[in-house]
Amino acid sequence: MNLIRRHVRKLAPYVPGEQPKGRGLVKLNTNENPYSPSPKVLKAVRAAVDGRLRLYPNPAASELRARLADLHGCGVENVIVGNGSDELLALATRAFVEPGKGVIQYFTPSYSLYPVLAEIHNGVRNEVPLEDDFSLPVALKKSGWKTRACLSFVTTPNAPSGCGYATERLENLCKSQKGVVVLDEAYADFAEEDALELGLRFSNILVSRTFSKGYSLCFQRVGYLVGSPGLIAALDRIRDSYNVNGLGQVAALATLRDLAYYRKNFRLIKQIRSVVAVELEGLGFEVLPSSTNFLFVKPPRFAAKTWLNKLRERKVLVRWFSDPRVKSYLRITIGSEQEMKALLRAACQIIEAS
Amino acid sequence: MNLIRRHVRKLAPYVPGEQPKGRGLVKLNTNENPYSPSPKVLKAVRAAVDGRLRLYPNPAASELRARLADLHGCGVENVIVGNGSDELLALATRAFVEPGKGVIQYFTPSYSLYPVLAEIHNGVRNEVPLEDDFSLPVALKKSGWKTRACLSFVTTPNAPSGCGYATERLENLCKSQKGVVVLDEAYADFAEEDALELGLRFSNILVSRTFSKGYSLCFQRVGYLVGSPGLIAALDRIRDSYNVNGLGQVAALATLRDLAYYRKNFRLIKQIRSVVAVELEGLGFEVLPSSTNFLFVKPPRFAAKTWLNKLRERKVLVRWFSDPRVKSYLRITIGSEQEMKALLRAACQIIEAS
Repeated sequence: MNLIRRHVRKLAPYVPGEQPKGRGLVKLNTNENPYSPSPKVLKAVRAAVDGRLRLYPNPAASELRARLADLHGCGVENVIVGNGSDELLALATRAFVEPGKGVIQYFTPSYSLYPVLAEIHNGVRNEVPLEDDFSLPVALKKSGWKTRACLSFVTTPNAPSGCGYATERLENLCKSQKGVVVLDEAYADFAEEDALELGLRFSNILVSRTFSKGYSLCFQRVGYLVGSPGLIAALDRIRDSYNVNGLGQVAALATLRDLAYYRKNFRLIKQIRSVVAVELEGLGFEVLPSSTNFLFVKPPRFAAKTWLNKLRERKVLVRWFSDPRVKSYLRITIGSEQEMKALLRAACQIIEAS
Repeated sequence: MNLIRRHVRKLAPYVPGEQPKGRGLVKLNTNENPYSPSPKVLKAVRAAVDGRLRLYPNPAASELRARLADLHGCGVENVIVGNGSDELLALATRAFVEPGKGVIQYFTPSYSLYPVLAEIHNGVRNEVPLEDDFSLPVALKKSGWKTRACLSFVTTPNAPSGCGYATERLENLCKSQKGVVVLDEAYADFAEEDALELGLRFSNILVSRTFSKGYSLCFQRVGYLVGSPGLIAALDRIRDSYNVNGLGQVAALATLRDLAYYRKNFRLIKQIRSVVAVELEGLGFEVLPSSTNFLFVKPPRFAAKTWLNKLRERKVLVRWFSDPRVKSYLRITIGSEQEMKALLRAACQIIEAS
């Protein structure tokens, strides 16, 4: 008797971006926010670190869901909170897709977690290539995109390309789907528009958001979905009962009380993004338009993988993916002004030394 | 096309113990530790609340796993850390049990989460009743316990009965199992013996531990499993990549540096448990022997459910389960001396007023 399920024995694990232990690296590889959480958030979390840690957290994240519902003008029954949005994406596979039969589809390149989730759940994968410029396929039906997929993941704005999709186009895509669509808006705070209202208008759409990127809370694992009460209730029934840790809930609540602080950061990151894009173009990089907190760039002179290593030698960490579609690109997180100066300085040196 | 999987549509959610919002209640309903985490733990967590919250936590909980391996005299490959041990129990269903076919078994009464996990995963449930005194079935084969179950959960010491099982008996039980056995030792810190070494000796045994109960960290969701590298690796491949929040990792690490503080608490809780057991017996309660941080008692004069309500009227919250096997019992967490005095005072008043 084999102890482990057949498909689990074959799985390759998801490879998260490196979390280096040493100091002194300019870390532009996992799209973290360069700015600290707001001082009010830090104060609120510190104030909660006392004997209450011995108690279970609110199992339904009730207060947090109520504040999120206020923010988005919906009801608490439209919101579920997770241990990071990754947990919620995994829950969606388990709630909506019959293993061995149901189709999980997504565009490529997009978030590299989707194939991993599909394999873990033993779903049937359908990968549909984006156009050469990473826009959505012009002829969706011809592209192989299935209207009867149980679950479709759409990263918008997309990663790693950074491209945003128009809400109108997303609405048309969603309307034709018979199954559930998750619009994964991890980077929405850095975009010009978002599609959250689609989650409230259509019974088959869920919109995924996170406190990690925009709100500088990667460490504490808080994400959420907005959508129709029927889908939300299904996810709620299969989640772990205490899935969101207490200090994460405290931090997210304090975040929602100080949104002005974060909106200033979004503006700043977008400004830095514009400046760095121009600078990199000046150095010969091809820079894709970005609606996110990173740039997807094709570097000059050397292969992207060589650039990855040359930058690392100069203590600058960026991300490179081996997939053939994107292996000539680097994904560079927008860091602070100082961090981006270090990146540009290293890039200049690499070019000068060539 | 129905959006939600058939078995998910039918699920009844797990009902966690009440987490009351108001103050002034003596909370003896969810087996939380009455004592705060150690001052050193609080200090370590507060010191970690700064700009670093913007960064992802260590995805593999590497340092925490290394310290746990030191503690238990095993390798890091024998340890996986989860978002509370509940996450790890759920992962075990997904790694080891084929939905629709594989058997998940457990004794009744035991942890009320197991049937919920089995239903969520669409496993085949096998519930085997414990003896009348809540000990393991004398004739295991005749009891309906299946040696070929994919996954067997054994809570030891058991909840809600509080009874401990001898390691020798557990070893015999595990030896005959062809599938995976999880020994769920959430309450091991309050027992006279534990069976952790079985997880290191047998390739089909996992031992589950938590920082929630003994180490006063319910709020931060940290649990772990110890077992053979093959089983641990399978679970590792299907977990969320950042499943353990950062401040939880910080808190657990600081806990392991101050175990003397917690061992003193274990002794104190066991002392209070002895004293309260005698007092309750004096009031006419039938008190089961306990190897945990709670007492399972059959109250006099009124039905247990009536006691639940009468105690709540007096601001004392305990736990009652509607299952026929245990509906004449109350489960009472061992609180601080002051809290137990409040319980005993309320119990006296209820008896006197009857």
